[in-house]
Amino acid sequence: MFNQLGVIGCGLMGGSFALALKRAGLVKRVIGYSKSPSTTEKAKRLGVIDMAAESALLAVSGSDVVLISVPVAASEATFKAIRHLVEPGVLFMDVGSTKRDVVDAARRALKDRVESFVPAHPIAGKEVSGVENADPLLYSGRQVILTPLPQTDPKLLQKATDVWAAIGAQVLKMSPENHDAAFAAVSHLPHLLAFAYFSSIHKQPAGKDFLSLAGPGFRDFTRIAASDPAIWRDILLANKEEILKQSMRFRHTLDALEHVMKSGNAEALEDLIRSAADARSGWQMSTPKPTPGR
Amino acid sequence: MFNQLGVIGCGLMGGSFALALKRAGLVKRVIGYSKSPSTTEKAKRLGVIDMAAESALLAVSGSDVVLISVPVAASEATFKAIRHLVEPGVLFMDVGSTKRDVVDAARRALKDRVESFVPAHPIAGKEVSGVENADPLLYSGRQVILTPLPQTDPKLLQKATDVWAAIGAQVLKMSPENHDAAFAAVSHLPHLLAFAYFSSIHKQPAGKDFLSLAGPGFRDFTRIAASDPAIWRDILLANKEEILKQSMRFRHTLDALEHVMKSGNAEALEDLIRSAADARSGWQMSTPKPTPGR
Repeated sequence: MFNQLGVIGCGLMGGSFALALKRAGLVKRVIGYSKSPSTTEKAKRLGVIDMAAESALLAVSGSDVVLISVPVAASEATFKAIRHLVEPGVLFMDVGSTKRDVVDAARRALKDRVESFVPAHPIAGKEVSGVENADPLLYSGRQVILTPLPQTDPKLLQKATDVWAAIGAQVLKMSPENHDAAFAAVSHLPHLLAFAYFSSIHKQPAGKDFLSLAGPGFRDFTRIAASDPAIWRDILLANKEEILKQSMRFRHTLDALEHVMKSGNAEALEDLIRSAADARSGWQMSTPKPTPGR
Repeated sequence: MFNQLGVIGCGLMGGSFALALKRAGLVKRVIGYSKSPSTTEKAKRLGVIDMAAESALLAVSGSDVVLISVPVAASEATFKAIRHLVEPGVLFMDVGSTKRDVVDAARRALKDRVESFVPAHPIAGKEVSGVENADPLLYSGRQVILTPLPQTDPKLLQKATDVWAAIGAQVLKMSPENHDAAFAAVSHLPHLLAFAYFSSIHKQPAGKDFLSLAGPGFRDFTRIAASDPAIWRDILLANKEEILKQSMRFRHTLDALEHVMKSGNAEALEDLIRSAADARSGWQMSTPKPTPGR
């Protein structure tokens, strides 16, 4: 399907995409660039990329598909660094967890060349980062959200859809605005709450003793608090309006629960808990059918 | 080790204890009582108990070990119902997630017979309840906290320690007060936050759409929001002072994070996230060595 994949940012997400395309036989060779030369070197040593590029621009040169997998705040600088080689017919995608800011950065930096950019957000990740954790199955069975612009080249949008589907992901399309509102609710706020909760336990005088008693519920509730700090710094800043709106809603619900706790109204408390517990019991994560070979 | 186990409340916890003792060959027969006759019947049909008792008192009669596994708010009524058969040398335990209230109830109801009661809290559970989910390995590899009173019979305390250890649990001892402070922090508050968070998503106009996009981070963060409403109603009420204290600490940490988000201070935000993420990455749940035969 592709001759050369250029990966800008050889971390968990970029490395996993490279491995997935190789595994599916969708690409002949992979060229990679990372800000730190030792990362690029490691990616080559691990066989995630075939060639190391000395700049983002050189990773684009000769590629017919390019994945920009850098922290979202580095998107604009990356677009600027590669703009001269953003040519029609070459598919450019990102993997950012926020989309309005990335789309705005692409519009500013790429101008009319933005037609080659298909903004993408794969709903996948791990609490360990780095190319050493890259996994060809990271995207298999996961959703990928594409947020095309009015000027996005429809042929490239179709190519983007096909390549994600070919590595086992389920592709959805929505506007950058709807994307950011939805993910503030179901991803960004839980991360913020998990960071805040884990900190508040960890920092109190008896924190160490408390942590030694914590069980499986705590373990799962706080798993996302171990997520990559640089990635999440950028996400929390890029989408702060939507996240703060969701946080306000959350605080109101928490206030309501605490109010009935304080009043000792057992029946009202049970009703509030039951409505959450029933809805959560009935919820299931959307997953496409597994791809053959998984 | 025991001739007869009496189980008062044949649910997930009581049923799993019965199965674990049977599996380890620690008990000759199990007699069970539940408020609902159909539950007792089901427990008998599933082989979790051998005999159905028609009252809590009858489940105690002839037993040399008794497990009271009822929602914590039902503890006092249960102690009152069985007080006449609470005799020296018979081991009585509970499984409640709060300990001060259960200990107070036991003192009030049992008076000097309280010496036979060893308050216990196994750190184990599932997000599915009921005797049909009882599991002989539920307590294997888990911690069990005992919170003995000054008047607790040391021989029964030792027996309690031995029986939990024999089914694969690691036994810790602490005061009811320290227990409740610790579990407010690492268990009760996370449940409250998970109920509040899931509700706040579920109840908003676009909630259904948002939930269809949620991924593995959301799934794990909200797993405990599916916990049993009646059990958690009682826990949140019984330990509300400690939980509200912990909630206040959490809100202060959340305020601090939101403050740096609003100010756009990327460095300070990353520092706060990193301190949580590093600590969480370094944390591991305490688990005893698996018992032979697990």
